[in-house]
Amino acid sequence: MGHTFPGALVPFGMVQLSPDTDTIPYSSGSGYNPDVYKYCAGYQYNDPTIVGFSHTHLHGTGHSDLGDFLIMPMEGKIMLNPGTSDHPEKGYRSKFDKSTEIAKAGYYSVVLTKNNIKAELTATQRVGVHRYHFPMKETPAIILDMVHGIYNYDGKVIWSSLRIENDSTVTGYRQTNGWARDRKVYFAIVFSKPIKQYGIINTEKETYQGFWRRWKMDKDFPERSGRKLKAWFQFNMQSDSTLTLRLALSAVSAQGALNNLRTETPKANFDKIREQAYNTWKKEVNTINIEASDEEKRIFYTAMYHSLIHPSIYMDVDGQYRGLDQQIYKADGFTNYTVFSLWDTFRALHPWLTLSHPQETSDMVNSMLAHANQSVHKILPIWSHWSNDNWCMIGYHAVPVIADAMAKQIKGFNYNNALKAMVSSATYAPYEGLEHYMKYGFVAQEQSGSSASVTLEYAFDDYTISKAAELVGESEIANKFAKRSLNYLNIFDPATKFMRAKKSHGHFTKPFDALATHDMGYIEGNAWTYSLFVPHNPKKLIELYGGEQSFCNHLDSLFTMELPAKYYEKTEDIAAVGLMGNYVHGNEPGHHIPYLYNYAGKPKSTQAIVRKILTTMYHNSPSGLCGNDDCGQMSAWFIFSALGFYPVCPGTPNYDLGAPLYKKIDLLLPNNNLLTIKANKLSSKNIYVKRVLLNGQELKGEVITHQQIMNGGLLEFEMTSER
Amino acid sequence: MGHTFPGALVPFGMVQLSPDTDTIPYSSGSGYNPDVYKYCAGYQYNDPTIVGFSHTHLHGTGHSDLGDFLIMPMEGKIMLNPGTSDHPEKGYRSKFDKSTEIAKAGYYSVVLTKNNIKAELTATQRVGVHRYHFPMKETPAIILDMVHGIYNYDGKVIWSSLRIENDSTVTGYRQTNGWARDRKVYFAIVFSKPIKQYGIINTEKETYQGFWRRWKMDKDFPERSGRKLKAWFQFNMQSDSTLTLRLALSAVSAQGALNNLRTETPKANFDKIREQAYNTWKKEVNTINIEASDEEKRIFYTAMYHSLIHPSIYMDVDGQYRGLDQQIYKADGFTNYTVFSLWDTFRALHPWLTLSHPQETSDMVNSMLAHANQSVHKILPIWSHWSNDNWCMIGYHAVPVIADAMAKQIKGFNYNNALKAMVSSATYAPYEGLEHYMKYGFVAQEQSGSSASVTLEYAFDDYTISKAAELVGESEIANKFAKRSLNYLNIFDPATKFMRAKKSHGHFTKPFDALATHDMGYIEGNAWTYSLFVPHNPKKLIELYGGEQSFCNHLDSLFTMELPAKYYEKTEDIAAVGLMGNYVHGNEPGHHIPYLYNYAGKPKSTQAIVRKILTTMYHNSPSGLCGNDDCGQMSAWFIFSALGFYPVCPGTPNYDLGAPLYKKIDLLLPNNNLLTIKANKLSSKNIYVKRVLLNGQELKGEVITHQQIMNGGLLEFEMTSER
Repeated sequence: MGHTFPGALVPFGMVQLSPDTDTIPYSSGSGYNPDVYKYCAGYQYNDPTIVGFSHTHLHGTGHSDLGDFLIMPMEGKIMLNPGTSDHPEKGYRSKFDKSTEIAKAGYYSVVLTKNNIKAELTATQRVGVHRYHFPMKETPAIILDMVHGIYNYDGKVIWSSLRIENDSTVTGYRQTNGWARDRKVYFAIVFSKPIKQYGIINTEKETYQGFWRRWKMDKDFPERSGRKLKAWFQFNMQSDSTLTLRLALSAVSAQGALNNLRTETPKANFDKIREQAYNTWKKEVNTINIEASDEEKRIFYTAMYHSLIHPSIYMDVDGQYRGLDQQIYKADGFTNYTVFSLWDTFRALHPWLTLSHPQETSDMVNSMLAHANQSVHKILPIWSHWSNDNWCMIGYHAVPVIADAMAKQIKGFNYNNALKAMVSSATYAPYEGLEHYMKYGFVAQEQSGSSASVTLEYAFDDYTISKAAELVGESEIANKFAKRSLNYLNIFDPATKFMRAKKSHGHFTKPFDALATHDMGYIEGNAWTYSLFVPHNPKKLIELYGGEQSFCNHLDSLFTMELPAKYYEKTEDIAAVGLMGNYVHGNEPGHHIPYLYNYAGKPKSTQAIVRKILTTMYHNSPSGLCGNDDCGQMSAWFIFSALGFYPVCPGTPNYDLGAPLYKKIDLLLPNNNLLTIKANKLSSKNIYVKRVLLNGQELKGEVITHQQIMNGGLLEFEMTSER
Repeated sequence: MGHTFPGALVPFGMVQLSPDTDTIPYSSGSGYNPDVYKYCAGYQYNDPTIVGFSHTHLHGTGHSDLGDFLIMPMEGKIMLNPGTSDHPEKGYRSKFDKSTEIAKAGYYSVVLTKNNIKAELTATQRVGVHRYHFPMKETPAIILDMVHGIYNYDGKVIWSSLRIENDSTVTGYRQTNGWARDRKVYFAIVFSKPIKQYGIINTEKETYQGFWRRWKMDKDFPERSGRKLKAWFQFNMQSDSTLTLRLALSAVSAQGALNNLRTETPKANFDKIREQAYNTWKKEVNTINIEASDEEKRIFYTAMYHSLIHPSIYMDVDGQYRGLDQQIYKADGFTNYTVFSLWDTFRALHPWLTLSHPQETSDMVNSMLAHANQSVHKILPIWSHWSNDNWCMIGYHAVPVIADAMAKQIKGFNYNNALKAMVSSATYAPYEGLEHYMKYGFVAQEQSGSSASVTLEYAFDDYTISKAAELVGESEIANKFAKRSLNYLNIFDPATKFMRAKKSHGHFTKPFDALATHDMGYIEGNAWTYSLFVPHNPKKLIELYGGEQSFCNHLDSLFTMELPAKYYEKTEDIAAVGLMGNYVHGNEPGHHIPYLYNYAGKPKSTQAIVRKILTTMYHNSPSGLCGNDDCGQMSAWFIFSALGFYPVCPGTPNYDLGAPLYKKIDLLLPNNNLLTIKANKLSSKNIYVKRVLLNGQELKGEVITHQQIMNGGLLEFEMTSER
């Protein structure tokens, strides 16, 4: 249910080379298709067929895109149609032997049973490497489908082109109009064996052909452009029956892709490339050592793996990248990234990267600052998506990500420029209700159907701006945004005790249903969840709820109440959304809530709830996650919580303590300090924290600072069964 | 009938800014539309309305394209539909006052009567500059129509985008699928007054909008992409009522366009830019001084003007350009050009540029060599069209253009590389019948519907390769292609005395009609015209026709026979195609024929026919040309012939003598030598040449060499009435 893909990639790789079992079918019409969500990663575990291997995938997003450049091996008669899951024989699609499927870090392998072809995949940052073992019963061929996409309604491909550069090199590009409105991606392929014959077919009847009609273009004609291109290749197979194929991506140009290919994979040595990919992953996971069962280790390291997929490197090896304005830039001293699903990831994924990957965090901040510079609105990304902002979800959550990096003293970007971009984003009047928000302190429902959620998230984001402004000594900005950070107060309804949507004249919208997720002014959550979204001032929130006891009762209700079925009937798979009462772990808006007991004098409730989530909602199984992983946010929540602390309020240097999931954890910090985390006397009963010692000194309160962690040493949790 | 446009440009400018009176109407369906030809330059003299001013035009081609970025000024209610010629009030289109229309070198002006707006246009190489004088009765506005094109059927625009960069700068691009299959053109606009409000509208219902739906995009929203974009702009007009608009083009990027704009027009000084454009033209025409009537001068200098429109500069000011493979290159030591209509222009336009513009010729050769390098076929352009080959017409006539430059010792390109590219083009088997031609010495009708024409033109092109190979000492190549240059013999039919199409088995195709232009194996010509296409060996041709007398009789028949109406009924305007008997001056294949009498002992027939064409088929009037100018070929024929010589066989250093049209001509050569050409005793009766003296020495034969011309001095024609 995590909407993950099993294919090969390296950490933050631009290439995610993975089997697609199904996609949104052809000609399914335009607009939103409910299967979009199901197939966002192109793979569903129980599907019986594989349509091919494509090079770009999103990890657990709420919408679909990518799936570029589908490659499929086959033998015998050339088929250019994919066929269907029910009728794979009608196309190049194949059933596969589930027992042969191997998915390891940086490697994927499967036997496609139609022709008994063994497929192996591995990757570098920008190159997908395929190795196919053909039985050679009939003539082997490779299909390249330029139409295929993970959400491939008619009209998705704006234009594409293909060129046979020489007997083993093919280049091309396609431009798509999808979640990313105007997306260009280029490729270069080098085959390990010479092409013997080939065909590039345009499967669309062309409006206008001009004098190109002169050529016989369907076979051995080396260039073609159009909207629905498919190609097949047969080879001089020579002595052996394996074919290695390297496909490099670039968002800049085909030249860039070829340069990426030659630089990252100078030779077609599959096994060596696979070993490199494996070692890269090994180095990553070796930074944390946990004392735990194999099952627990699988869950933990899977979360680590998932936390290192996005954002994705979005730059050629020579530093060139395509900016948001579609112009080509050369990155000046940083690595450019894309795929920032910020509404999801500002919460835990980015704070986790801030802690574990300061260099990458700095690069990501610089990428977002470049994005703002290239933006015609001059604002930071909302959802950065391959030289587009897809404008998905709400808030301006690049702001807390940058503020977090500043609060934790990440080097490598200009703090003053960063603050300017943050302020710019928070004051861009045309953006979702901001004009009204700036005038009246709340976003009105007329301006945004999610006005309550939006107001709350703006207020939090504003708080982080005030903190960032303090850091660089901009007290005027700090004061202004500190004041704005109180705007959540403007939509609190003392009568219902919920944060509620208001119309522009200032009255709350009616009717009101605190459990409903639609039409109430919230998005992907209801009044219960969103009303608790004041991560920057839980104390004030507790006050609004009538004090600590009353607040804890409210939280208890949230985690235990019985949610009537009508509120989740439309949900994809209710077993898999992480329901705990009315708390939904499978989605993000409540991820900080389990830690709020800490602020109301009941840290042991936090410890209990967090442990329950950790142990019941993350599994070592195909449906191991209770909601889509949202580019790693779900997994980052797990990592933090399993270590025993969590960033309730990113943009401040503090973490909120929970309790470690394992008896002993060694955390190798990026400054090469070692933090050993122990949960003394931890058992299935001893799940509560009696006290916490940092290098022998007791920590007061449920907070540990970033600096304390980075200094390393010994962090001991004394566990007890006493609640 | 020349299919010329009256707008503003500078010599070889990338921008041709000109009024479009009509275009192929919207939704006229796909495929070939007969009006394509009529509106290839976007302008017809008698049309009553102007739809707007667009920035790219083709000068007298046989097919339509371009018309990028239509600008139209208006007042009052915004209209985004163009309206029609019959109903201009239904759109932004306007009637205009014909008496106010001024078209001068580098300048165009007209009063649009709908709102009484005076429009003025001028240009630099890459920037179109508009100045509009608004009466200010209602609110002035500028319409930018990104859909408009000179051939704008549905689907022509693949994709486009627009960005409002700041209060006076707009950038964007569009990609079109037309005669150029996959063409990208970028622009940047700077207005002289700040934008007050604007709208970018997508007039197409969008298949997929994604989360962009969040924004109110129709007004004051600064970026949009789609297939049918239109925009309007209103301004803070401040004190005066004029608006200057600079629009720069680039085929590289919007950044490139902006850089072009800032470099070429740092300020919006319309009058100064106009003066610069005028002076550039003045410098060009001042190289030739003729002693003639004003009427004659207008005709001659119009021809000179027309000879300097194409090829067009195709490179940003920083040297970057988009190659044939759509990759971005930096021109290494040359200026890159596009719009090579080579089947037309190898005959006289390029030889004229070889003589008059050696630097540009060298740049053009380098452009074609780069094109070949970038070509996946590794062949020289057939019809180079904005990073595309549109594959229009036949032959590989980049070859004689380059051979001509070599024969005339143009410096600045590598002769050995050039020869390689020529050979490569002439030996690329998949190209129109070349495989069969190389095996059997003729192109078979099964492989090309124009097989006779193709065989003849290949044979000529091959001759020029042999000459070029001789020059660089590649005797093996020289011999091979000298042999191939005889291939015209393989399709000569002694029975009918015509060059005829053969089937692959070697028999002539049947039925045969020597006057028909269709289905006979010819293209844009009939057996009479094409059978005389052996410019490299007229002596052998004369032999085939049974000797000089018999050949002259044949030519006489050609120029005097009565062509039955059925053979030209389908022609656009028979009065305007330049019929002289069965000779058609309005099209290219026969352009050398008037000079063939020279080779058969009757130079005076050449002199008479050439003079008749010069004086009856070129006029100082809106329909001054007898056929479309084909990128300047018709005009270059005029210039050469008016000077008294013509290159029957480009690729050799010789010109064939006719007789000067004027009593005295001063020709300032590019090496700064002066050649004075005199036609002593020239009168309406004294139209024949008695003898020719070069610097006092009589020239033997009807030939003058390139070197003799370049040395300058005095070239005297003694004219007589004696035939």
